[in-house]
This record gives sequence, C-alpha cells and structure tokens, in this order.
Amino acid sequence: MAEYRVTFAPFRKAVVVPVGTTLLEAAGQARITIDSVCGGDGICGRCKVIVKDGRVGGAPTALLTREEIRQGVVLACQTTVESDLVVEIPEETRAKDKLLVDRDAERFRAVRPGIEKQEFVSSPIVTKAALKLRPPTLANNLSDYQRLQDWIRPATGIESMQAGLKVIRRMPSILRDHDFTVTVVVGRRRGVAEIMDIEGGDTSARSILAVADVGTSTIVLHLVDAVNMATVGAQACFNSQAIYGREVTTRMIAAERRGAQPLQHLLVEDINGLISTLAAEKGVPLKDVTAVVCAGNTPMIHFLLGLPTENIRRSPFTAVTVEPPPFRAAEVGIKINPRGLLFAVPGISSWVGGDLTAGILATGLHEMDGIGMLIDIGTNGEIILGNKEWLIACSASAGPALEGAGVECGMMAQQGAIEKVYLDDGEIRYEVIGGGVPEGICGSGIIDLIAMLLTQGVIDRSGRFVEGGDHRVRFEDGRWKFVLVEKRQTPKGREVSIFQEDIDNVITAKAAIFAAAKILLDRLDLKPSDIDRLFVAGGFGSYVNLENAIAVGLLPDLALSKALYVGNTSIWGAKLAALSGEARQTLREIVGRTTYYDLLGTDDYVEQFQQARFLPHTHIELFPSALEQGAVRRG
Amino acid sequence: MAEYRVTFAPFRKAVVVPVGTTLLEAAGQARITIDSVCGGDGICGRCKVIVKDGRVGGAPTALLTREEIRQGVVLACQTTVESDLVVEIPEETRAKDKLLVDRDAERFRAVRPGIEKQEFVSSPIVTKAALKLRPPTLANNLSDYQRLQDWIRPATGIESMQAGLKVIRRMPSILRDHDFTVTVVVGRRRGVAEIMDIEGGDTSARSILAVADVGTSTIVLHLVDAVNMATVGAQACFNSQAIYGREVTTRMIAAERRGAQPLQHLLVEDINGLISTLAAEKGVPLKDVTAVVCAGNTPMIHFLLGLPTENIRRSPFTAVTVEPPPFRAAEVGIKINPRGLLFAVPGISSWVGGDLTAGILATGLHEMDGIGMLIDIGTNGEIILGNKEWLIACSASAGPALEGAGVECGMMAQQGAIEKVYLDDGEIRYEVIGGGVPEGICGSGIIDLIAMLLTQGVIDRSGRFVEGGDHRVRFEDGRWKFVLVEKRQTPKGREVSIFQEDIDNVITAKAAIFAAAKILLDRLDLKPSDIDRLFVAGGFGSYVNLENAIAVGLLPDLALSKALYVGNTSIWGAKLAALSGEARQTLREIVGRTTYYDLLGTDDYVEQFQQARFLPHTHIELFPSALEQGAVRRG
Repeated sequence: MAEYRVTFAPFRKAVVVPVGTTLLEAAGQARITIDSVCGGDGICGRCKVIVKDGRVGGAPTALLTREEIRQGVVLACQTTVESDLVVEIPEETRAKDKLLVDRDAERFRAVRPGIEKQEFVSSPIVTKAALKLRPPTLANNLSDYQRLQDWIRPATGIESMQAGLKVIRRMPSILRDHDFTVTVVVGRRRGVAEIMDIEGGDTSARSILAVADVGTSTIVLHLVDAVNMATVGAQACFNSQAIYGREVTTRMIAAERRGAQPLQHLLVEDINGLISTLAAEKGVPLKDVTAVVCAGNTPMIHFLLGLPTENIRRSPFTAVTVEPPPFRAAEVGIKINPRGLLFAVPGISSWVGGDLTAGILATGLHEMDGIGMLIDIGTNGEIILGNKEWLIACSASAGPALEGAGVECGMMAQQGAIEKVYLDDGEIRYEVIGGGVPEGICGSGIIDLIAMLLTQGVIDRSGRFVEGGDHRVRFEDGRWKFVLVEKRQTPKGREVSIFQEDIDNVITAKAAIFAAAKILLDRLDLKPSDIDRLFVAGGFGSYVNLENAIAVGLLPDLALSKALYVGNTSIWGAKLAALSGEARQTLREIVGRTTYYDLLGTDDYVEQFQQARFLPHTHIELFPSALEQGAVRRG
Repeated sequence: MAEYRVTFAPFRKAVVVPVGTTLLEAAGQARITIDSVCGGDGICGRCKVIVKDGRVGGAPTALLTREEIRQGVVLACQTTVESDLVVEIPEETRAKDKLLVDRDAERFRAVRPGIEKQEFVSSPIVTKAALKLRPPTLANNLSDYQRLQDWIRPATGIESMQAGLKVIRRMPSILRDHDFTVTVVVGRRRGVAEIMDIEGGDTSARSILAVADVGTSTIVLHLVDAVNMATVGAQACFNSQAIYGREVTTRMIAAERRGAQPLQHLLVEDINGLISTLAAEKGVPLKDVTAVVCAGNTPMIHFLLGLPTENIRRSPFTAVTVEPPPFRAAEVGIKINPRGLLFAVPGISSWVGGDLTAGILATGLHEMDGIGMLIDIGTNGEIILGNKEWLIACSASAGPALEGAGVECGMMAQQGAIEKVYLDDGEIRYEVIGGGVPEGICGSGIIDLIAMLLTQGVIDRSGRFVEGGDHRVRFEDGRWKFVLVEKRQTPKGREVSIFQEDIDNVITAKAAIFAAAKILLDRLDLKPSDIDRLFVAGGFGSYVNLENAIAVGLLPDLALSKALYVGNTSIWGAKLAALSGEARQTLREIVGRTTYYDLLGTDDYVEQFQQARFLPHTHIELFPSALEQGAVRRG
C-alpha cells in the first residue's frame, strides 16, 4: 500500500502513514493531540485543521463555513491522506500541553492532613532494602539465595519469596563484587514477595514509585519517594485516546473495530511521556522507578492492560477483571525499571472503577461513623454513599459538559480557563486560571455562570433564556446565547459565550448525577440532611463554588459546612496504595464491602432524571436553602 | 574465522565448526555422545575416532598404538579440525543410546508398594480443572477473572491466585467461545497458585507431568499421568555433558572457562530429546505436558538453570541456590507447554542435592522409628543416616568406577553389560543384560567379580594379583589382568578383562564410600548392627549382590535381611513431588531437618579412607560375617 509523509505545522513533526489514513489518526501517531469530542464521527466539528499542501480525500461537511473551506480548513477526522501533506493545526484545535496539578495536591492535604505518615504503616508496593551479609564460611556455607532470604526476612518482615531466574543467576557475582553488601528490590505481589532485582552496594535511598490517575480526559502522574513518602513531582497530560472520542463508549467501539492495541499504545505512551519528563526534570534514573500504581475507571484499566472491552459495553456489562493481579510494567510497554511492577487499584464493577475505590480510601468514607457521600464528577458521575458499616455505589453517564467539553466555549481546567464567575456590586466578574486572557470556561466557571443567570432571572428554571432578561443575551446565527466575554475584550478576538444548547447539556449532566444521588438516598430512606459529610471530587475546576453547585441542583441541598471539594481523590488513593500494604488491604476490603447499585435496573431513574432537569429541580422543596436565600422562586 | 564441515560416519550427521574445534566438541554439537572419561584432558584414551578424510591438527599421544595411528585413529579430544573432514566413530567409542529403566521402576514398588496412591493426597504441581461456569447476567455480572477464581477455589482448594496478562487477555473469548465450559491449568508456585492457561471445553483428562532424574552420567525421564497417577512411559539417555568430562568437577571447570551456556544447552537438549521421543511414542501432545520436575545433584541443577558453579567448587563451597523457586520451563529452553513449570527438588547443600532428598522421601527414611541408612552410589557417593527424629548426610567423591567408568572394560548398566558374576560348581559364570554377547562389565558385575577373585585367592586383601592364583591372570603389554571373557568367546573378538589398575580404582571408590559411612556411624556412636534398614541406591547395576558388596567392603557388615537394593530413588522421590503437595512439603521439611556433615572438615577422613583401601578393610574385625563365612582370611 502507498505511504505518504504528513508534516504537521507548527510542530515540525512528521509521520509516514498508509494512503487513506485520517488526519486525526496521523496526528495521533505524531503524538499531537487534537481536540475531538465525538471521536471521529464527524459531528462535533472540533478537529479543524488546515491543509497547506498536498491532496486529501473526504466527503463535504456542513460543519464548515464557506470561508473556512476556502482557507483549506477540513475536519481532521473526515479527511484522508492521499499524497504527501503539510497540515497546520490551528491553536484552537490543539489540546493544551500542561495542566495544573499542584493546587489539587495542596487541597487534599487540607482534607486529611498528614494522612500518609500517620495513619498508614509504610510498606511500599516495592521496597528497597540494603543488606550487609556475612560472607559464607565453611561453618556456614548456606547458598547465596538462602543467605539473602534469611537477611531479607528480618529487614522487611516478608516471609515467602520468589525470584526470577535472571536475578538468581546474577546473585553470586553481585554479592562477591560488592563484599556482600547489596540492595534488594522486593516487590509485593499478592501473597508472596518477589526479589525483583539486586543492586551492588547500598542504593536503598533511591526508591521512586510512579502513581497515576488514568482518567478518560486527563492523566495525572506523581512521582513519590518511597523512602520519605514525599511527592517528588507531579505532571498531567491529556489522554491521547481522545482522538478516538471523548467518551469511553466511543473508544470501546474503536477498540472493537481496530483491536485493543492502538488504544493501549496511546495510553502507555502518555504515561511514558509523563514519567520520562518528570524523571528527567527531577534527575531520577528510570531504573530507580520500580513500580507504577494506577487508578482509573474499569475501561481505562482494560485499555492500559490491552484487555478486550467489548463485554463491558454490552449487557450484562462484564469486565474481564476489576481486580487485576500485579504485572510487570514492561509487559504493557511502560518504561521504568525493566522488572518494575504495574499495580492497578481494584475496582468494584464495570462502571465503578479503581478511581472510586481510591476516592473512598482517600476521603475515609469507609471509616466514617456518620453517613458520608462522595460524588466524583467526570464524564461518568459516580456516587458512593456509606459509612464504616456499609457502602453503596452507583454510576451515571453525565457526559463531559461539567468537564468543559460538550459546551461550545468550554475547556478543561487549565491555563486560560474562566474558573469562577461572580457578581461584584452588580457587575459580572470572572477569574482566569493563570490570570491571563480568557480562552474559554471550565466546569466550575460554568456552574457559577448558570447559577448567576438563574438568580439574576436571565434564564428560567427550565434553563431557557428569559426574553429581555439581560442585554448580553443575544440571538445570532439562529441561536440564543449569553455573552460573558465580548470579542473585543480579548486580544485574539475570541468571544466567550454560553449557548442555549450548552445550558441544556449542563442541565442534563447535573440531572444525571443528582438523580443518581437521590435514588441512592431514597433507597436507604435518607434525606440530604442525614448526610454528615459530602465530598465532591473531580477535575472539573481547581475551584468549585459548592453553594452554586447546590443552587443549580447538581448537589443535594445540605449545610455548606458539611460539603467539601476534595479535588482528585483518585490519585491520592493510588498514592496511599503505592506506599502502604495496609492501604492495599483496605482497598480490597472496600471492594468486598461495596454494593454496586445498577441504575439501569431501577424503575424510577428515568423519572428522577426528568424531574432533575430543572434548576435546581422540579420539586423545589428539595432545595430549602436555595428557597430561603431567595435564590430561586417557586413555580 | 574459517569454518569447516565435519561429517560423522556412520551417522550421516554433519556440523559446521570453526577451525581449531576439537573432534569431541564437534561430535557433541552433532549430538553424538562419545565415550570420554577424562573430559577432554587426553588421559583416558576412550575417545578414539578414525579420520577418514581431511586434515586434522594435534599433538602425538602415547595412548595410541602404532597400528592405530597407521589406521588414522586419533583421540577426539586432542585432535582439531583443520579442513572439511569425514570422521568415523567406531562402535566401541560410541556411548549407547538406550538404557534399561523398567526393572528399576518395578523394584521400587516392592520397597514401598502403592506409595503414591495410598500415602499421599494427589495435588499435582500442575492441576487441570474443568469448570462449567454460569454465564454472567445483569444480576450477577462479576468480572470474568473473578468468576473463574470463584469456581477454581472449590474445584481445587486453592485460595490465592495469580495469572499472567496473556492468559487474562484470552479469558473473555475462550469463555464465550465455549459456552463458559473451560479447563484451567493451575500451577502451584510456593505460596500462590498461578492460572497458567485456559483451554476451551473439558481437557482435564489430558494432564501429563515429566519427571526426571538428572544424573551426572545418565538422565532418566518418566512421563506421569497426573489424573490417574500412572507412569505413561520411561526413557533414559546419557548425559551429553560427558564430552566435558565424566566428573562433575571437570564440567564445572569447563563452565568457568566457557560460561554456563554450553553445559546448560546439552542438558536441556537431552531432556527435550527424552520428552519429545516419549511423548511422540505415547501420543502425548507437548502442550499437555505442563511441568517438569527434576531431581539432581546441586551442580546438575545449577547447569540446568544456567547458574554459575564456580563457588560450589571452591571453599567454602557455596551454591547459588539449593532450593530454587519454580520457574517457567521455557526460561531454560525446555519444550513443553509454553507456560509449563520447571520444579527442582530442593537439596541440602552444594554436595548433597535434591536427588538425595528425593531418595530420603522415596525410601521413607525420614519416617523410620528405627535407624535407617541410605547409601546412594554414583560418581559421588552420598550417605544419609537417620530416622523420624534426625537425619545426617555426607558426600564422598568416589569417582565413576562403580558406575562402570574408570574401568577399562567397564560400561554402564545397559544392553551387553555383564551385570552378574558367580561360581557354579567351580566354573565362572556371568549374566549379560539383554542376554546377548558381553561387551563389557557394569558396576554390579565388577563387585561380583572382585568378591569372587578375593574368595578364590586370585587377589589378596590389598587387591594385588597373587602370583599363580589362576590361569586367567595374565601379564600383557606390561600390565596384569584377569580375563573374564576370552577374545575368541565373543563374535567381535572383544576381550572382557579386569586390570590391576581397575581393581585399584574400584577399591578407591568403595573405600571413599565406606569411610564416609563409618565416620557418620562413629560420630553417632553407632555400629553397623544398630542399623535397622540399609537402602542401597544407584544406577550401577540393575542387579546388585549385596552379600558381595559387603564382602568387598563397600557396604558396612550387617545382616543381609536388613539391606535392600532400591535402584533409582531419585526419580521416585521426584515423582512423588510432582504428584503431591504433601510430598513437596515433606521435601522442604527433610531439607530443614537434615544436617550436612562435611567430611573435608573432619580430622580422620583420610585415615579412615586409607584403612578402607583393603578388601574388605584393614580392620577385618569390622566384617564379622565375612570372617565367619570364611570368605576372607585374617592378615
């Protein structure tokens, strides 16, 4: 088959691909992430690129204006390579490179300060132990392996040990070349420990673990020092699988068509990129990174391990595994120490994954005397209700609107996103992440904005624009919108608006989550006021105004003092799992104790969902505090 | 470097080797085993071959007659390839292809009849379990892996399980392609079990284990049916490492010079050859052979695993491991099921290996109320003394004389070997294995012959020929010999004689073993008569006359009713280990309970050895029964 070179401007990256490859796939192979919501179905119109040189194929689309077509703009997902090409990717099409992660990390410490050091015994999933052995004598000529094991036991408390043949072969020379002072790298794999490696001399001070939250949209990775339990560094990137769709389901369909390998490869390369960049930045040799601990939803972990996902997507929604045993990271292509381990935080079901189990662990929901609720808002919204005696979980498909996708000017919580909207003396004000020019609006900003529009009577309780409600409400190109940032106010002339359709999408998302939470409460005969602690987790903003989240009916109405935004609990739970055997044991107990409640099997989910498609809700009496503050009027 | 083709007649086998390669090495590469005792040092003169065509290099040797040199005879180990060659390997130089193993197997059953089925719970090292799972439903949509584990537990009693990524990846399709009826292949690796493979449908009836006694001279291999615990077939071959020397030490030196790989390769190919031949003969697909269980001395297990042996050979004689964890057989190149396991029976020290532990298990020494002794006669003689409360072991370097090597007309216990010599009405009679023409004499025949020469006054108590003792004692080519079979009596004109040097070698071997046994008894203040049961093991004959073995002073003098020749106990112990978890546990207990007594650390071994270099011993009073029968005279 003919192959052509596609060069991407302004990156100077080029790839050679077979004729007929889409530009979206070609960009993926060049490791350039293009903003795509629909995953290549040609319906979101996000993946606009400009063909500067060469011949392309593809059908016409209604999503481009005549002007754009004249400029050579095409949809990357609908356009195929037919010759050597030069393709420009405009800035607005590019997914951003760098996310903010530090504030999340700090916020968590406020929730459970000092949790790692005080509450858990440190027993990292991979331990390094320096041993100064007594050399063999005629009176004591135990075998090298036995000698090593006899010293490892008291040093680590590990009884039963395995070792690979390669490691055993190297033992005699390493021991003798270093006067019997060596460092053993011991990994914990379920019941037994494995001597993964032996290093000459005392290298026990250098022991680094990688911990990742493998999300549908973003991947956050921390390097953790297993010796002093400190975070060495943190970094995040977009999940490159986005070229196969924003939604997990779209990606699973892609995996069925193309096999698991392409999706696995993208994820593994994202993780490799984060590890290698961070390791280089912090001066950590990859050899010293001895494990990767990942928390993610069940389909993401399947992609990571290259497992087929087809049965997750179809009734009865069966995962291959929700509690995979530890594998060698190299088996999936992750580049750390060649014998390093890959551990996935165990999940509960096909739709409640290890990210949620990690969240329960991190928030301590499973230890609460009172009743706690954890709402983790992502492309799927997951809700856990429980205490130290019981835990019940469900999952609702919210769509990506609250993460800033599915909203025309939406963007993820990153540099340039409006994360906060408020009234100051009657004037609308906003705050932009990084303090610069606004480029769009992220989830927390959208919630603020809608709450404000509601209290100001700009929209009604069904989310419809009220005629004459505000001068910023405009009708243009057949669509209603509210203009938050005027074109002329931004240097690049980009207006930030919210359209009627955007509001509808947000209401759909929040309704899905609220209905799920309400059904869980109803089943247990609980009212929102019975909740002693509400944890709100998710990456939809680095700041979330919980009062507004209640006002729009995303969260149940309860005293604000009981609610806490806890950011990315998935990575914190994963970090605890990396550092502590007790935490890993607790995770397994959480899995065993948590009942999965399948909303699809309930009679009233659709009804509850429909009722929640008002602001804050059809039944306004469910939001007494909102009523009290006069934020909304009855009827 | 120039390479030349060496063709071996009459095998029509050819190899291409670099210039300078010895003919012995070239034959090894062609997988033709040449009889060599000294391992290529040019001193045994066994490896005579005839160069038919081509140019060779090498120094002159005193071990060839002028006639031989004229015929083109050279020593394979001293002759190098300098051009393309045709080399003939005369029949007397070839090691034999086939050993007898069946009689051994039968003999064991007589020692502990029905031991496998009655005394041990069957829990093979690899189990196959057929499972008919209930397919997932909405009400029960456990993950595939969890579902499988939940069914394996009750079917096998195994709690903690691991599985490789490849197996997990295949789970969903195998389950669904076979209506959720599958067979799991579960291997036991120390504390945890591993789901090694999943097969569609019910294949549980086909589960075969290979069990091997990896000896310095010979390798015996049985295929065992794990389902009904029956032996499917048995076969043996010579250890091809013989081209690097008959003695283990010579081979360890070779491994230090050339690396572990060449020695490992020969052993692995021998095992592969036995498995594939037997499997083909019995119609067993290699895929159904799921484990290899090996018992061998510690250096052999090191060779098999490719472990360095240099520290075994040098003080303080430290093994890399005497209790290796189970590995995947494919890791060392053994060709069975690709995920099949390799398990080595644990040993006690560098010089008391798993073959002995297996022997203890097989004879039941470790369970005895009275005192038992096990003498395993091989190139090393190993002695264990003990009962259900204590076990003490030592090892003595005997040399290969009792295995038929190091004796000019000696051969291993195989077709054509004289295995029995006796007087019938004053006439010397002998029995030949297979009943055909005598080609040499094996260990049991040599013991009979020497005992007879002693009682008949042909040799004196120091082993010297008595002048005029018999007309068959002759002086030829400067050497004294006793002619057992005259040249004219055999069709091929091969005389079978025993030379003065042969007798000396046998006396040295038996002295080493007797001295070791005596020291153990002395240390525990025991006399031979305190022994309740003496097990004599080893492959030196398929028949051993224990009375004669006592008469020559190889075994301590005790009532014949207490002594039992038990043949190859190594393979029987290995077979029990393959079939029973209880046996594997017992082996570890035996290892833990057995004290290794190092003869090199004793003051009196050399003295005891010197005293034992008489027939039966310097101190004749140690052999009261021999005295009583008038077999030997005092002084």
